[in-house]
Amino acid sequence: MAINLEIPAQENIHAIDGIRIGVVEAGIRKANRRDLSVFLLDPGCTVAGVFTRNRFCAAPVQVCQRHLASGQEMRALVINTGNANAGTGQAGLQAALDTCQALANELRLDINQVLPFSTGVILEPLPVARLIAKLPEAVASAAPDNWFDAAYGIMTTDTQPKIHSQALELGGSPVKITGISKGAGMIRPNMATMLGFLATDAGIAQALLDKLVVQLADRSFNRISVDGDTSTNDSFMLIATGASNVQIQSEQDPRYPELVKALQAAALDLAQKIVRDAEGASKFITIQVNAANNSAEALQVAYAIAHSPLVKTAFYASDPNLGRILAAIGYAGIDDLDVSRLKLWLDDVLVAVDGARNPAYQEADGQKVMAQQEITVRVDLQRGNCSETVYSCDLSHEYVSINADYRS
Amino acid sequence: MAINLEIPAQENIHAIDGIRIGVVEAGIRKANRRDLSVFLLDPGCTVAGVFTRNRFCAAPVQVCQRHLASGQEMRALVINTGNANAGTGQAGLQAALDTCQALANELRLDINQVLPFSTGVILEPLPVARLIAKLPEAVASAAPDNWFDAAYGIMTTDTQPKIHSQALELGGSPVKITGISKGAGMIRPNMATMLGFLATDAGIAQALLDKLVVQLADRSFNRISVDGDTSTNDSFMLIATGASNVQIQSEQDPRYPELVKALQAAALDLAQKIVRDAEGASKFITIQVNAANNSAEALQVAYAIAHSPLVKTAFYASDPNLGRILAAIGYAGIDDLDVSRLKLWLDDVLVAVDGARNPAYQEADGQKVMAQQEITVRVDLQRGNCSETVYSCDLSHEYVSINADYRS
Repeated sequence: MAINLEIPAQENIHAIDGIRIGVVEAGIRKANRRDLSVFLLDPGCTVAGVFTRNRFCAAPVQVCQRHLASGQEMRALVINTGNANAGTGQAGLQAALDTCQALANELRLDINQVLPFSTGVILEPLPVARLIAKLPEAVASAAPDNWFDAAYGIMTTDTQPKIHSQALELGGSPVKITGISKGAGMIRPNMATMLGFLATDAGIAQALLDKLVVQLADRSFNRISVDGDTSTNDSFMLIATGASNVQIQSEQDPRYPELVKALQAAALDLAQKIVRDAEGASKFITIQVNAANNSAEALQVAYAIAHSPLVKTAFYASDPNLGRILAAIGYAGIDDLDVSRLKLWLDDVLVAVDGARNPAYQEADGQKVMAQQEITVRVDLQRGNCSETVYSCDLSHEYVSINADYRS
Repeated sequence: MAINLEIPAQENIHAIDGIRIGVVEAGIRKANRRDLSVFLLDPGCTVAGVFTRNRFCAAPVQVCQRHLASGQEMRALVINTGNANAGTGQAGLQAALDTCQALANELRLDINQVLPFSTGVILEPLPVARLIAKLPEAVASAAPDNWFDAAYGIMTTDTQPKIHSQALELGGSPVKITGISKGAGMIRPNMATMLGFLATDAGIAQALLDKLVVQLADRSFNRISVDGDTSTNDSFMLIATGASNVQIQSEQDPRYPELVKALQAAALDLAQKIVRDAEGASKFITIQVNAANNSAEALQVAYAIAHSPLVKTAFYASDPNLGRILAAIGYAGIDDLDVSRLKLWLDDVLVAVDGARNPAYQEADGQKVMAQQEITVRVDLQRGNCSETVYSCDLSHEYVSINADYRS
């Protein structure tokens, strides 16, 4: 079902020196499912994260933020699927802390050095005893080349594992980047039911990493939309182990722009893979809004199109129902939008000019584009110089089936 | 398919003295379909309207606003289905004006005295010649008791006609109220793909009517959500013919509050009927947000729930997946929301307290409510004294089918 979602071969996935990963079955919600992963970080790593803005943020998100703020060195991540530990009140907070304490004990760390992540059903108590009982096995099995297992281990409604890996040279020294993500529904800007973990063996100073993780998320995980829902557990973590020879202390380092570019490409790939595997999706839609006055209004228009159920069902039906796209632009909330200046393309087919149908437009041309698995909608607002791009998908029968039948 | 949508018997529909209605087949898009209606108003009526806020507002909406601002007495309405005359540029504007001019000629009126309305597919040229050719027949067939025909005549994806009629006494004098509406998808606050026409034989001074129509819409058509899309053509018109003995000149008239109450009930019924007949809907959901600081934040929370595809599919599945409702509340955009004070009910079942599952809650109780055709979601924010209610429905396979297969 996933749309052109590339899964790299095991031998093309680079381990990141300084990180060992263990993945086991803890029976959190279902048996025979690898639902518990640990990331063990050597001393000297820097770690930074961005989290859901949902006010109902889950207990593990609250604990992550607290532990990251402690100023201590992060040394372990623990991730479970099957249960989000969200909407679980004080007991849920205690469960997340108990998880961290148990792993800290196992590894002889302070509780503040452990970051917890959960994804799955909301409002159910986390079966913390079952989780903790399996931590020793997870730690014992930890190895540098378990990224592929972890990509499977964090899946929920995902049909495919999402993994990105690349090797590059910076100033003559090899650097590796590997990351995984999960998420398929409840996806919208500002983090969704998704987890992303991106690591490099380059060293990046903490202050730099704190800025970088926000920058990467803004142009990747914050640019995707499946169904307009934001979840309670979304987290994107960036880890720099410093195990390679490349150590970046400041933005002025001549190697930094290239490293950022590679990390940004990795984050975008991991984010796009979430859309490619979106619940019930049959089409991958790129929405590009050009010539806006500023980023905010470009995104307003892009998300109005991306979130419209009518536009999304039209894509599902391969129906060039352009009126629905124009209507979405019209209600995007730009009060002084002059629709008579607007242009709209489906791929390279100019379908609307001056706010009405392009006289030269042939329905057959629009139909041809709509029949594709990958479609770019391009809007020219003719107001300014700002462009933004977001990534979305269609709305299908399968989306309804998955979400009507399933409790993650 | 419609949910408890009551269709009054023909004999319970009161004609409104001062209004004659004609409904004919003009073949706008499909043959054998009554797709053209005219409302002919006697001299002395007052008329006011509210319209879509979509920037892509359709040509007839632009013409309506211009004609209402002319200061002349409105004497006729002309309504077609099958084509929205939206996104049609200068040619569309001319088509709407030509329609008005033709009806004005037929009735010996000024063009400014005619209000045009269109609903249907966007971006296609209005077949204005076919429409105009049938205006004489529509005028010739006009009669006071054709409200039922008009309710059918303005339908598009509606499965049922939507009509409300009541008679009351004001200060000993009989007054009648009758209205019709249409709409089934592309429905969200601030007007959607809907038309509403509400009339009374009470007389209401123009200045009063202008305020009243906004007030009525705010508490009816602006409180419903089907799919979060706003259309280009939405219009709600209020007509006071003054043919009865009741003439209202000011808000201080002791009969006015009772008339407003009756009109508000009529508008709300017509609005709710749109949700009851929403595309693919199997459940009618009332969402009540209490103890908010103000109306805006109450509505933000209510619409976050109403628009969430995940909440809507859970309703479709009769699945008390409360976490999805809490997550929607969490991302509604109230930055300082203290979720630990929140309470949530399904009908009278208290499902969440203090931001977590109510310890006394039994899934079977939630399941029982979710299995009903009509469900009330009640949220207590414990922040202030403001309450708001909106009306919505579930998201079903049928919604996707209808919108994937159909060009209105």
